[in-house]
Amino acid sequence: MENLIEKLKKAKVSSYTLALLNTNEKNEALRAIANNIEKNIDKIIKENEKDLKRGEEKGLSKAVLDRILLNEKRLRDIIKSIDDVIKLPDPVGEIVSMQKRPNGILVGQMRVPIGVIAIIYEARPNVTVDATILALKSGNAIVLRGSSDALNSNIIITEIMKEALSNTKVPPDTVQIIESPEHSVVEELLQMVDYIDVAIPRGSAKFIKHVMNISKVPVIETGAGNNHIYVEEDADFEMARKIIINAKVQRPSVCNAIEKLLIHKNIAEEFLPIIAKDLREYNVEIRGCKRTLKILTDAIPATEEDWYTEYLDYIIAIKIVESIDEAIEHINKYNTKHSEAIITKDYYKALKFLRMVDAAAVYVNASTRFTDGGEFGLGAEIGISTQKLHARGPMGLKELTTTKYVILGEGQIRE
Amino acid sequence: MENLIEKLKKAKVSSYTLALLNTNEKNEALRAIANNIEKNIDKIIKENEKDLKRGEEKGLSKAVLDRILLNEKRLRDIIKSIDDVIKLPDPVGEIVSMQKRPNGILVGQMRVPIGVIAIIYEARPNVTVDATILALKSGNAIVLRGSSDALNSNIIITEIMKEALSNTKVPPDTVQIIESPEHSVVEELLQMVDYIDVAIPRGSAKFIKHVMNISKVPVIETGAGNNHIYVEEDADFEMARKIIINAKVQRPSVCNAIEKLLIHKNIAEEFLPIIAKDLREYNVEIRGCKRTLKILTDAIPATEEDWYTEYLDYIIAIKIVESIDEAIEHINKYNTKHSEAIITKDYYKALKFLRMVDAAAVYVNASTRFTDGGEFGLGAEIGISTQKLHARGPMGLKELTTTKYVILGEGQIRE
Repeated sequence: MENLIEKLKKAKVSSYTLALLNTNEKNEALRAIANNIEKNIDKIIKENEKDLKRGEEKGLSKAVLDRILLNEKRLRDIIKSIDDVIKLPDPVGEIVSMQKRPNGILVGQMRVPIGVIAIIYEARPNVTVDATILALKSGNAIVLRGSSDALNSNIIITEIMKEALSNTKVPPDTVQIIESPEHSVVEELLQMVDYIDVAIPRGSAKFIKHVMNISKVPVIETGAGNNHIYVEEDADFEMARKIIINAKVQRPSVCNAIEKLLIHKNIAEEFLPIIAKDLREYNVEIRGCKRTLKILTDAIPATEEDWYTEYLDYIIAIKIVESIDEAIEHINKYNTKHSEAIITKDYYKALKFLRMVDAAAVYVNASTRFTDGGEFGLGAEIGISTQKLHARGPMGLKELTTTKYVILGEGQIRE
Repeated sequence: MENLIEKLKKAKVSSYTLALLNTNEKNEALRAIANNIEKNIDKIIKENEKDLKRGEEKGLSKAVLDRILLNEKRLRDIIKSIDDVIKLPDPVGEIVSMQKRPNGILVGQMRVPIGVIAIIYEARPNVTVDATILALKSGNAIVLRGSSDALNSNIIITEIMKEALSNTKVPPDTVQIIESPEHSVVEELLQMVDYIDVAIPRGSAKFIKHVMNISKVPVIETGAGNNHIYVEEDADFEMARKIIINAKVQRPSVCNAIEKLLIHKNIAEEFLPIIAKDLREYNVEIRGCKRTLKILTDAIPATEEDWYTEYLDYIIAIKIVESIDEAIEHINKYNTKHSEAIITKDYYKALKFLRMVDAAAVYVNASTRFTDGGEFGLGAEIGISTQKLHARGPMGLKELTTTKYVILGEGQIRE
């Protein structure tokens, strides 16, 4: 406990120094981190192998072990991603708008760092670097709490990053790692309103809900994606097929893949067999509503629970709907407010879908797989917010800042 | 309890209808509310008199009774403020930015209502109207929970507003009032994450902290203002005097008034007696640090607690500091992140103060009394946020919205 507060105090105090550095000073620190990771690739791989070995003994799935794996190629990709962030514009210090009021005062909003960001994340050691780089570039201190399944990797990476910072203007104390594998430490962390300005949990929907429930620190909810594609009766079938397959099978384990397909009743008999054939070529299991089962007699009946479920797997549930209104109602009831798409040629239906669907990203005629900081032009992201306050959708550097009003006067007083 | 959920459900369901109305439809509803208030001025005053009578019997202070009071002039001011909001631009539906990505998709951010806003507020029946008008104009349903000391006034005003809405496109259910005087109802309200998207507590610092502590619903902290003016050694004395007096005594009971004065040591001997004389002309009680007491021998010694206290009264505490650095350090330690000002002629000191002081509004050479939605050009405000996420400083219509990404494609898939 004391150790934790000690670390958080260091993060807080050093965050004030970091907040005032200019872009060149921060970029030099990121460059130093990239160089030191490159110099220590072998060391990192050695520690990573310990995590992999422990994971195998523990019986972790291949998918999880693959997420933990750091090889030379992956580390070089990480180094490249640091270069990409160095090239991004620095949002800090920017004056968002400045207007002159009738009495002559100038009122503007200056973008400033949030302060100290805590990230609680799954067994992906690349996040240790990504989150740190984004936090530092946006002038924020970072508190890292990764999965204990990647602990050795995370510790060595953090050491290497802090070592690199020691010769730069960025205080090494701006990067803190919580090493304790105890779950209780996360609970403690989430009570520390005096030291942590925002917490970003990543991982399963259940874990994120748990964090939101127990946290006194403001939390940004990141997201599960129970995403839908709705195919209107006027849709171009070829386009619909291409987009559905891309959104479902290009990478089924990620949050911007689709889990559900809604089809207008007037095209169901024609389109369902075509898309079912496509999906089955990729070994996608099909579950369906009652009307779907009448057409695809070999599909598995979907339960009420299916409509709520994010499979993250080669499974899709299909529902036939009466109209765009039923589609929108279904989506707004069951979705996780992540990414939703319509395939249509109709201008007014496209507008209606865009306006009425409640989600972080709403698409017309494109794959939901684009919900990503890089694809949206933010350069990089620390997560995808599925809540409404502060940030919604992919969070880049700008979303890691806040503003303060700055007022330039010449002696004005209020009458 | 069931009654509460019933009301919240109605608010939630009707918020979807409201979210899709266009600006004219919302303005017509606001106009109807203004007209109906005007038609019922006598009725409102009659109910308000019940609150005042109960308040007198209960022994409420004159200041609180004055806040509760609604007379014809005040009601006409409220009606005028509705007109002002009608004239404000509607942020909903605006596309904040839309860029074309290399693959041809257009990625924009559409401003949309947050959903259902709960406001928990002190005995100021004007807030019942102000908050409702701002919420409706920005497309949000509102749940009102005012002080029981103004309950009769709040109930009649809400009835009049809902009656007015019944002939408009805005569903009357978008306005809900919680009538129960029990404190436990606030606690219940703050657990209702399925129905309430954000809660805005107003009132004492202690009450707001309490709300933040118990709420599961996201809260926007609004603010206490333990505000400072720092007078640099090069300051124009005349300007400093004018600003200090304005910020302290023009309206001492509000959150953007100052509570503390910091003075550079090199001008203390000359400036302190001058400003003390000014302040005492307005019967301001002066408390001081040890060095202040050596110059103002009749001042009251300030305790450590004084530096943390928001007096909201004719009291000020004065501290002599070694340098701008000590001033900034003192402010960042003791302030409530509301409004802070420096008086100086020095360009670099002004810049330093603007960059380093941690507050929602940081001033150079102007009175802190300008921290206000109207004065900053937002037109109106629902409160002043002293936290960093989502909104910081006065919150107008824009701060009552969120964004969603909208993506216009022509069949693009992710490679």
